[in-house]
Amino acid sequence: MNVTNNHGSIDSLAISPLNKGLGAFQQPVTAAEIKALNWNLLREDLSLPTAVLYEERMNHNLQWMQQFVSEYGVKLAPHGKTTMAPKLFARQLAGGAWGITLATAHQTKVAYQHGVRRVIMANQLVGKQNMAIIADLLADQSFEFCCLVDSADGVDQLGAFFQARKQQLHVLLELGPDGGRTGIRNPQQQAAVLEALARWPDNIVLAGVEVYEGVLKEEADIRGFLQHAVACTKQLAKDGRFAARTGGAAARPVILTGAGSAWYDVVAEEFAKTEIGLPLDVVLRPGCYLTHDVGIYRAAQAQIQTRNPIARKMRTELQPALQLWAYVQSIPEANKAIIALGKRDAAFDAGLPLPAAHYRPGNPAPDTTPAHWQLTGMMDQHAYLQIKEDDDIKVGDMIGFDISHPCLTFDKWRQIAVVNPQHQVIDVIQTFF
Amino acid sequence: MNVTNNHGSIDSLAISPLNKGLGAFQQPVTAAEIKALNWNLLREDLSLPTAVLYEERMNHNLQWMQQFVSEYGVKLAPHGKTTMAPKLFARQLAGGAWGITLATAHQTKVAYQHGVRRVIMANQLVGKQNMAIIADLLADQSFEFCCLVDSADGVDQLGAFFQARKQQLHVLLELGPDGGRTGIRNPQQQAAVLEALARWPDNIVLAGVEVYEGVLKEEADIRGFLQHAVACTKQLAKDGRFAARTGGAAARPVILTGAGSAWYDVVAEEFAKTEIGLPLDVVLRPGCYLTHDVGIYRAAQAQIQTRNPIARKMRTELQPALQLWAYVQSIPEANKAIIALGKRDAAFDAGLPLPAAHYRPGNPAPDTTPAHWQLTGMMDQHAYLQIKEDDDIKVGDMIGFDISHPCLTFDKWRQIAVVNPQHQVIDVIQTFF
Repeated sequence: MNVTNNHGSIDSLAISPLNKGLGAFQQPVTAAEIKALNWNLLREDLSLPTAVLYEERMNHNLQWMQQFVSEYGVKLAPHGKTTMAPKLFARQLAGGAWGITLATAHQTKVAYQHGVRRVIMANQLVGKQNMAIIADLLADQSFEFCCLVDSADGVDQLGAFFQARKQQLHVLLELGPDGGRTGIRNPQQQAAVLEALARWPDNIVLAGVEVYEGVLKEEADIRGFLQHAVACTKQLAKDGRFAARTGGAAARPVILTGAGSAWYDVVAEEFAKTEIGLPLDVVLRPGCYLTHDVGIYRAAQAQIQTRNPIARKMRTELQPALQLWAYVQSIPEANKAIIALGKRDAAFDAGLPLPAAHYRPGNPAPDTTPAHWQLTGMMDQHAYLQIKEDDDIKVGDMIGFDISHPCLTFDKWRQIAVVNPQHQVIDVIQTFF
Repeated sequence: MNVTNNHGSIDSLAISPLNKGLGAFQQPVTAAEIKALNWNLLREDLSLPTAVLYEERMNHNLQWMQQFVSEYGVKLAPHGKTTMAPKLFARQLAGGAWGITLATAHQTKVAYQHGVRRVIMANQLVGKQNMAIIADLLADQSFEFCCLVDSADGVDQLGAFFQARKQQLHVLLELGPDGGRTGIRNPQQQAAVLEALARWPDNIVLAGVEVYEGVLKEEADIRGFLQHAVACTKQLAKDGRFAARTGGAAARPVILTGAGSAWYDVVAEEFAKTEIGLPLDVVLRPGCYLTHDVGIYRAAQAQIQTRNPIARKMRTELQPALQLWAYVQSIPEANKAIIALGKRDAAFDAGLPLPAAHYRPGNPAPDTTPAHWQLTGMMDQHAYLQIKEDDDIKVGDMIGFDISHPCLTFDKWRQIAVVNPQHQVIDVIQTFF
């Protein structure tokens, strides 16, 4: 893969000295140059609060998921909205991912500009400027792209736009459960969308079927919904609805895709053996596995490790690879420390960050934190840490926090340092939110 | 004020075509160049979702607050953490603000690099790299800076660092109420901090007293706490504790400062007439007034308009100046539309965004939205809009949302378009989070 943008390779992208969470430098530097600066988190070379990615853990997770999908013979298009870090996209693709999933036209443009050439935009493409962004990228014949449709209005708007541009857009029929988010709910809606597609035969190509099962909470409901998606895909194949996708010189396999980060094992089980009488790519789209967490996704993964035979057989688990580090800035009451970390720095919508490591500058190594150290609240720039009266904690100590919900943590940082187990900064990834 | 950074003036900062929420351009452009591109929100020239600032409303709010503090004869140091937009800092300073308040060393560096030369860092300065950032800025003698202290440990760490650097740091004694956030709670703690300050007479200068009253909820408690701060400041003056600040060739007034965006009127009333027998600057630090909102700060401002005689006399009110715009992407159920707007785009910790305007591309102007259109939930990239079965709403319609909590909305955007009442883009501000 050609990991470049207008400015050269990802490693030569300039990182601004005005970004938070980094060490001292005066002029923009490249990620390649940062390694040579030899920063170490525990030597206080970084301005805290900061976010760090643990290289070994991230690599472990990357290989874990690739092995998992390989066991099922399905393909992986990790959801890139989680990290929005093209350097991580490149590692996922180099590690065997089939493509990258994204949520918006803007995100797709960012990925394309950094070398990604196969994208599922797991969302409807709406609006003149967003359609123009995608149309411009599709001028590159090597760029494989599809997005979702779930309404006749949406199809007609796409049809009119891409007809005027004399271009062809590939779309997936999105199915959704009652009470869910987007997606076709019933046969009448589906018929209306198929009728609309028939109005734009030269410009809108039906490429497959998409679901997001994560809006459901019960395994039985999810399996039923996934089986409905399989049946629907078979029927569409039987009815010849994928002819434009699979015929002709530019023929491509039909796509059947689902899976967020909580139920990808069940989607693999339900989708893997699907036969529709046409070439078919089954594609899973988890995004959070790369960094994992100790909150909602640890809980979800524990379920997967319990219920899924392949995951059990692998005998290793995903590891939390993203941490936040911040200083104790005040201990104004005997049982309360104030940490210089806030909603500006960490996700807080699915549980607050969890104290994991305690380091006093000058000590040989961090300690684990006592179980009773817990955040009880966060403001924009502060967190409340519950402690006990005689705990060994001082202003100026550093606390490392594990997180819950990587997506809303990544988007607080324009770059994140990658560290080795000795907390040496060995790389920097940039984000594009 | 010299509004420049290493790259030239704020208007010549390059805006990346990879940022979300803008119109079409291929190479980095300057804010000055963007005006010439003649984008209009309602002509769908921007990629939605996007955030826009209404120029007239922002100007109105800026003047409103400046008039308010002038009536009390106090000074304004707007909290810059809200917007982290140096171009808005420059407008606040040009409009009469005394300085800018910030929360971290990183934020202070960003402000300094864009020309701000007087900063209250309303926080403890902790950690080697953070101290180094401030020490580097203090090499510029024209830079006036002070931060907070509330512990002897903190003072000693600052003392050791700035003594080694042979520099002088000005600090404010932070007072905090029991059950609150940072700040000295009792006379024993205060004595310990003052003793610590006495250990570093050449390097740490006591410059005044600071409070953040916003952790309290009742007016009577707040007035009591503020009166305590006034009494404390008087006693410190009487005890000669400000001698290093007010004496010598580089003498400056003592600072007494408080006020978030909810109780600044009460702080003005309690602090304005303070006499300590020394030159004194009373400084208020609200941050959210510039854009205001229709949530927590509208509610807080309504209280101010009711209880404060100056606010009543002014006869105008703050206006919400920040909106988010997004497309209807799906109407999968009769009473539910899915909007392409999510937690990645808007604050959600103090109420969800509120639908305000509905625009169908091609129509002459937006309509106000029916009162029953309400967001019922938000995911990372989607929002659920409650509608009724026969409402006139279509996929591809644009919805403008007012917001609650500007701070956590600004930090979702690397730049925000400034528009006139015709929704023409007349400027762009960049943020540095």
